[in-house]
Amino acid sequence: MKPRILEVRENILKKNDELARSLRDEFAGHGTYVVNVVSSPGAGKTELLAVLMRLLTTQGVRVGAVVGDLATENDAKRLAATGCRAEQILTGTMCHLEADMVETALADFDLEATDLLFIENVGNLVCPQSWDLGEDLRILLFPSTEGEDKPLKYPTLINTCDRVIFSKMDLAGAVEFDLETARRNCETVRPGIATMETSARTGEGVDELAEFFRARVEEKRSTAVSL
Amino acid sequence: MKPRILEVRENILKKNDELARSLRDEFAGHGTYVVNVVSSPGAGKTELLAVLMRLLTTQGVRVGAVVGDLATENDAKRLAATGCRAEQILTGTMCHLEADMVETALADFDLEATDLLFIENVGNLVCPQSWDLGEDLRILLFPSTEGEDKPLKYPTLINTCDRVIFSKMDLAGAVEFDLETARRNCETVRPGIATMETSARTGEGVDELAEFFRARVEEKRSTAVSL
Repeated sequence: MKPRILEVRENILKKNDELARSLRDEFAGHGTYVVNVVSSPGAGKTELLAVLMRLLTTQGVRVGAVVGDLATENDAKRLAATGCRAEQILTGTMCHLEADMVETALADFDLEATDLLFIENVGNLVCPQSWDLGEDLRILLFPSTEGEDKPLKYPTLINTCDRVIFSKMDLAGAVEFDLETARRNCETVRPGIATMETSARTGEGVDELAEFFRARVEEKRSTAVSL
Repeated sequence: MKPRILEVRENILKKNDELARSLRDEFAGHGTYVVNVVSSPGAGKTELLAVLMRLLTTQGVRVGAVVGDLATENDAKRLAATGCRAEQILTGTMCHLEADMVETALADFDLEATDLLFIENVGNLVCPQSWDLGEDLRILLFPSTEGEDKPLKYPTLINTCDRVIFSKMDLAGAVEFDLETARRNCETVRPGIATMETSARTGEGVDELAEFFRARVEEKRSTAVSL
């Protein structure tokens, strides 16, 4: 017999996965490409997304965002200041986003007019790993300020992600961040995982990342049309 | 009737609280002052503790540490390099420490010869909040690199902590960290909470913090003797 707590947890995760699947179908129906952005608190998710959203908008991509925090609407306000639609999800004491929170936040969202949706998760390197939000891609931000060994310390999250973005690279010198070691540590945990370096402040890697998302958006749009 | 998941969670927390109470009694019996250190990943807990442990050792305080991570023994190795006893707790996929993990890690620990025990929690600004580890004091590190609004975003954790330490203050200039705003945000969430500024790299605030712990250790020793 399974222990009771494990059984309860499995049921909750199963319910989340079913809802995530229906969200994924909905996103596919509208041709909306969805990115789940995870990191620890203060890794620069909001700052990087704001820069990307401004740039992508000028390139004709219609971007939206939902953002999870325990408290405050600060991040949604910062993202809405880009001119894009941004919704705050307040999680209270919850340490991660779940599919039903995303569904609720999207209730008044015009997905048909959204090519690219960013879901900025609650800052946490552990708990978001088990929760599918219906995304196409999950990216993980590691800021240079957190040091090189984070990939080794959070292997499970890396194993659920599609791509690692080293953020705050403008501070790499000041904190003596060794990019090669950090990359090698990612490779150790997850051989072949793609990594990129960015700085929202200097703009390093931002064009490249925008181009990466633009290509995914176009790919998804063309698939949606052909369905 | 309570929902089933809530009931299960309450039972687990209750069991943890009972064990934490017995740990607290044990610490009191040995006159060991115990500090639970929480922060997000990469906030500089290990670096600050290593500097403190070296300093306190030269001042005659017998310090030990247990440190929680999902994977790797890196942090226990860094703390053991100070010459103090340090034990690693590997949590696997768990996002926080619980009292039973601390109890297990202390099995071979000589508490009688330990005046001050640091428990370095898993890097996470949400989940450790509900788990009493039998500590005397819970401190929360906010690095300057995470920005000023973290206190507002993680109110529950601040409300379970006794003191906020702003860490990595040597980087405050580079990241344009506004200390007054950060302090005000702490005060908004938790009026009267004490804050301090530190930098493990430049040594800022380290003497003051060591003195703070030394006073607590002496207070606890004198209480233990008089029991």
